[in-house]
Amino acid sequence: MGKVYTAATVSLDGFIAGPDESGFDRLFRWYGNGDVEVPSANPDVQFRLTKENAGVFVPMIENTGALVVGRRLFDLTGGWGGRHPMDRHVVVLTHSVPEGWPEKGENFTFVGDGIESAVATAREIAGGRDVGVNGGTIASQCLEARLLDEIWVALAPVLLGAGRPYFDELRSAPLDLEGPLTVLDAKDVTHLRYRVRYP
Amino acid sequence: MGKVYTAATVSLDGFIAGPDESGFDRLFRWYGNGDVEVPSANPDVQFRLTKENAGVFVPMIENTGALVVGRRLFDLTGGWGGRHPMDRHVVVLTHSVPEGWPEKGENFTFVGDGIESAVATAREIAGGRDVGVNGGTIASQCLEARLLDEIWVALAPVLLGAGRPYFDELRSAPLDLEGPLTVLDAKDVTHLRYRVRYP
Repeated sequence: MGKVYTAATVSLDGFIAGPDESGFDRLFRWYGNGDVEVPSANPDVQFRLTKENAGVFVPMIENTGALVVGRRLFDLTGGWGGRHPMDRHVVVLTHSVPEGWPEKGENFTFVGDGIESAVATAREIAGGRDVGVNGGTIASQCLEARLLDEIWVALAPVLLGAGRPYFDELRSAPLDLEGPLTVLDAKDVTHLRYRVRYP
Repeated sequence: MGKVYTAATVSLDGFIAGPDESGFDRLFRWYGNGDVEVPSANPDVQFRLTKENAGVFVPMIENTGALVVGRRLFDLTGGWGGRHPMDRHVVVLTHSVPEGWPEKGENFTFVGDGIESAVATAREIAGGRDVGVNGGTIASQCLEARLLDEIWVALAPVLLGAGRPYFDELRSAPLDLEGPLTVLDAKDVTHLRYRVRYP
């Protein structure tokens, strides 16, 4: 059975977005500072990675069978225009199916009965592959429900000062992690991967 | 001339202390998980480091000539009983000299006229060696005043959920960093060192 993981690019002071959704140009420099073109299913999203960064990013995508996202991230991206850049099935945890969906994107499923159900649905779709969980709020919910196996952090060399923290409203803290299982210092980012140790 | 740096052990979610000053047992596992005894000038503070961690910690202390700390950290530690564990002169930035001091600790200087003055005083005491700046609030002040050269993070594999962030009230963000200049993955901690790039 595949892993359930969350992955995010985080500033050194712990934010996945600066104030008013700023700072993405700084956080995501590593998405565009190389020569390796990584195909994106969404024409609005382009990846040009260094060889090292592609060596982390490409296997992550290839090993991922489905995604679970929160309604906030879905709305923020406009449902990725109906197709996620990773070209994977997306399970959206939401109390209400947004207007016009799922007709606007065939690879989208809307689940209203909780994080356990959303992850179970994604696991089924993923077959034996991994399930990726985003963003921070939904990852926190996954942690509370003891469903999250691994946390992948792409640590960006920037201080954002304020904004949206990776894990917010984490009631089950403190929580020990195992690792980093891997450390890779690449251009404009340091990749760290941890396993969650539930008490 | 030596560097001005700040160093802290930080949780993966960006906190140097959990709620109500908790979490230190988890953050500072690396202070006591090895066989290398590192002398402390303060009998209440013991360091037993792994060889790798000592290889980061000992040179940091040896290269440091003086420290600048805020009044909050000074009060929280009770002025380290009059002698800092690193056995270095401590410059305390405070509006008022606390009662009984500096008589209680001869290696303490109290500076009331701002962060520039505190750092200049510490630089003079340090001779050509480095100046260490702690904790987060005073390090933020140092950043605002463009006095901080480097940020050293000892990243602990734990989520604290809430608490005291490393850099708080950072008004000059976003701020780009250079690095990590060094990465060392050791037992219960990953050491990362960054240089500040002022715009």
